[in-house]
Amino acid sequence: MTQWLAMRRWLMVGLCWLLTATSGLADLLRGTGDLGIVIERTSGQIQVVDTTAQRSIHTVPGLGDLSHAAAVFSRDGRFAFVFGRDGGLNQVDLLRGVLVKRIVQAGNSIGGAISQDGRLVAVANYEPGGVRVFDSQTLEPIADIPAVSASGQTSRVVGIVDAPGQQFCFSLFDASEIWCADLHQPNQPTVRKFRAGDHPYDGLITPDGRFYLAGLFGEDGLSLLDLWQPQQGVQTILNHYGRGEEKLPVYKMPHLRGWAAAGELLFLPAIGRHELLVVHRRDWREVGRIAVHGQPVFVMARPDGRQVWVNFALPHNDTIQVVDVPSLTVIRTLQPGKGIMHMEFTPKGEHVWLSVRDEQRVDIYDTEQMQQVATLPAQYPSGIFFTARAHRMGF
Amino acid sequence: MTQWLAMRRWLMVGLCWLLTATSGLADLLRGTGDLGIVIERTSGQIQVVDTTAQRSIHTVPGLGDLSHAAAVFSRDGRFAFVFGRDGGLNQVDLLRGVLVKRIVQAGNSIGGAISQDGRLVAVANYEPGGVRVFDSQTLEPIADIPAVSASGQTSRVVGIVDAPGQQFCFSLFDASEIWCADLHQPNQPTVRKFRAGDHPYDGLITPDGRFYLAGLFGEDGLSLLDLWQPQQGVQTILNHYGRGEEKLPVYKMPHLRGWAAAGELLFLPAIGRHELLVVHRRDWREVGRIAVHGQPVFVMARPDGRQVWVNFALPHNDTIQVVDVPSLTVIRTLQPGKGIMHMEFTPKGEHVWLSVRDEQRVDIYDTEQMQQVATLPAQYPSGIFFTARAHRMGF
Repeated sequence: MTQWLAMRRWLMVGLCWLLTATSGLADLLRGTGDLGIVIERTSGQIQVVDTTAQRSIHTVPGLGDLSHAAAVFSRDGRFAFVFGRDGGLNQVDLLRGVLVKRIVQAGNSIGGAISQDGRLVAVANYEPGGVRVFDSQTLEPIADIPAVSASGQTSRVVGIVDAPGQQFCFSLFDASEIWCADLHQPNQPTVRKFRAGDHPYDGLITPDGRFYLAGLFGEDGLSLLDLWQPQQGVQTILNHYGRGEEKLPVYKMPHLRGWAAAGELLFLPAIGRHELLVVHRRDWREVGRIAVHGQPVFVMARPDGRQVWVNFALPHNDTIQVVDVPSLTVIRTLQPGKGIMHMEFTPKGEHVWLSVRDEQRVDIYDTEQMQQVATLPAQYPSGIFFTARAHRMGF
Repeated sequence: MTQWLAMRRWLMVGLCWLLTATSGLADLLRGTGDLGIVIERTSGQIQVVDTTAQRSIHTVPGLGDLSHAAAVFSRDGRFAFVFGRDGGLNQVDLLRGVLVKRIVQAGNSIGGAISQDGRLVAVANYEPGGVRVFDSQTLEPIADIPAVSASGQTSRVVGIVDAPGQQFCFSLFDASEIWCADLHQPNQPTVRKFRAGDHPYDGLITPDGRFYLAGLFGEDGLSLLDLWQPQQGVQTILNHYGRGEEKLPVYKMPHLRGWAAAGELLFLPAIGRHELLVVHRRDWREVGRIAVHGQPVFVMARPDGRQVWVNFALPHNDTIQVVDVPSLTVIRTLQPGKGIMHMEFTPKGEHVWLSVRDEQRVDIYDTEQMQQVATLPAQYPSGIFFTARAHRMGF
């Protein structure tokens, strides 16, 4: 009977454990369309957040150096690929809240992209330069694209984006070229190369995947490649865009990805000036300027294109301004707190999430009333990325 | 010892069962961003499909009359809300593959929408008319908006869409009005009413959520409401759009939702003619026509706007044509099979899924080569809807 009692106790313990494990799994069973991540840079970790409940559901540590970290998502929305400055490529399971795999694929990298079909993740590297391509499920290496220009020069690579036709487009900083690699045959990329302006330092693709634009460090203007007409090569547009004749001090080089496209208008952070430039996509000409509170960093359009939200470089990085697109005027100045690093809109634009780094918070604002509706604690938050990016080109 | 052996056997059976159940649950643990549904009209069921694996993962029966069924998705992408012609509102869990709840909320309904914040599902009714609003989690009734016009007339409601500002916009067929209901206070909708053209029969909203357009049954032209300037009221545009002076026979009234917006151009099915109309969004004027194979039904743009795919009414419903947007010409004519009912692009546009109803198949085409890459069996498939719609306005 002693044996029987011991057995029964063991059985009960086992059952309880299994039931707990099972119900734990049931808790994990959920959609991924309303998930996202918040980068906590100094601690090398991310929070997984739920934009419906407006709460954090996991903290995932061990992601390495997350300075200037960026992220893309698997096409099912379950996995985040987080690119660290240390060359780390981190695959995080948002449902279980675990770091599935981490590889250090280069010495220094500056962002990545996921292919149109979701099967490939590409990372743009500073050191040793070039682009490396991995299988998005296993992170096994698939292809290596050394960035060696016609003159034999090895180059740092920046501004990588996915483009239609299973392509990745990116800029060679040192070689002043723009390349588009076709990965239909994943281990045998076909690369088209274009002469660009002087030292492209960042790139973006328009939301329809048609135009690749690179900002230039070495001269004023921007390099534009029309992927519908690549045979035309790279044109220079907005040749007054840059530091300009006055060579103002630039406190923070604005992110090109911080451009906003609202309908046919693009809103660009002027470099070194307290202004936004308004550019019409028809002819890439400036059609207006909007005076703002400081040097703009991110200039982001609400998904319906009716508002543009702007944050600023030091000493104005405690402020957000909201531009009304129909009237091209600033309609609200907010001061959420010190160190506004990034903004991310919910997919249908009802809310925007702000990283308030120096106050250890992520604030959630209603975009209609432009008022705070919730706040979450976070350790020095920087980038915020939601899974809806999985379904958009160039994100 | 007999007791001990019996106990051990029972323990093993229990453990096996629990492990099986647990691993079953682990199989269900997956992202929802690459899921979708295929309506199997005649059997009142849907298939849940995985667009990464290109396979069916569940069949869910019991959804009632699925003639002209439409669907929207919860903001987390886990649940589909399927609107049946019988007034049924079905909530389907895509992960578990089960019908969670079904209510018959009216005698006859014609589609629905989900609110900007994802909390409310609205259904447009023919019988008894009006709009009914439900909690998207529980399907509990939240609000009832009877469609009674100024003259006291009760109206059938069509063309319901979600719009920014937590609104639903829809058309009153009998009363010839367009209404927009603001659901910020869910149980106390605030309704703005606009005089429209004669008998609006369907409506759509542009992808940015700015313009609501209604097709007119009683006259030529379309009713246009600019939600950024609602005080301007409804304008009539394209006043030659309709059956026109020749009053051609119309085999199937085209779906307005079948319009394509590619950049600044809209592609409309001409009514009763073998043509597409090309309209510029700047001034809503026709800028061209494209001759096609039959009377167009759905005219859908690939997500990057570079191609438009068209299907046709009888007797040409075995054919698909692909229009190249830069050149505005038909570049491919495909004959996948009889009864092409619907098309749905993957979010980044690399594939399109086609319902080939009379041949009991769903075909998957690569949009670049315009060739079939896979096929799935399906019972008289009609509508195909992917979860990425959860993140888009008007879908």
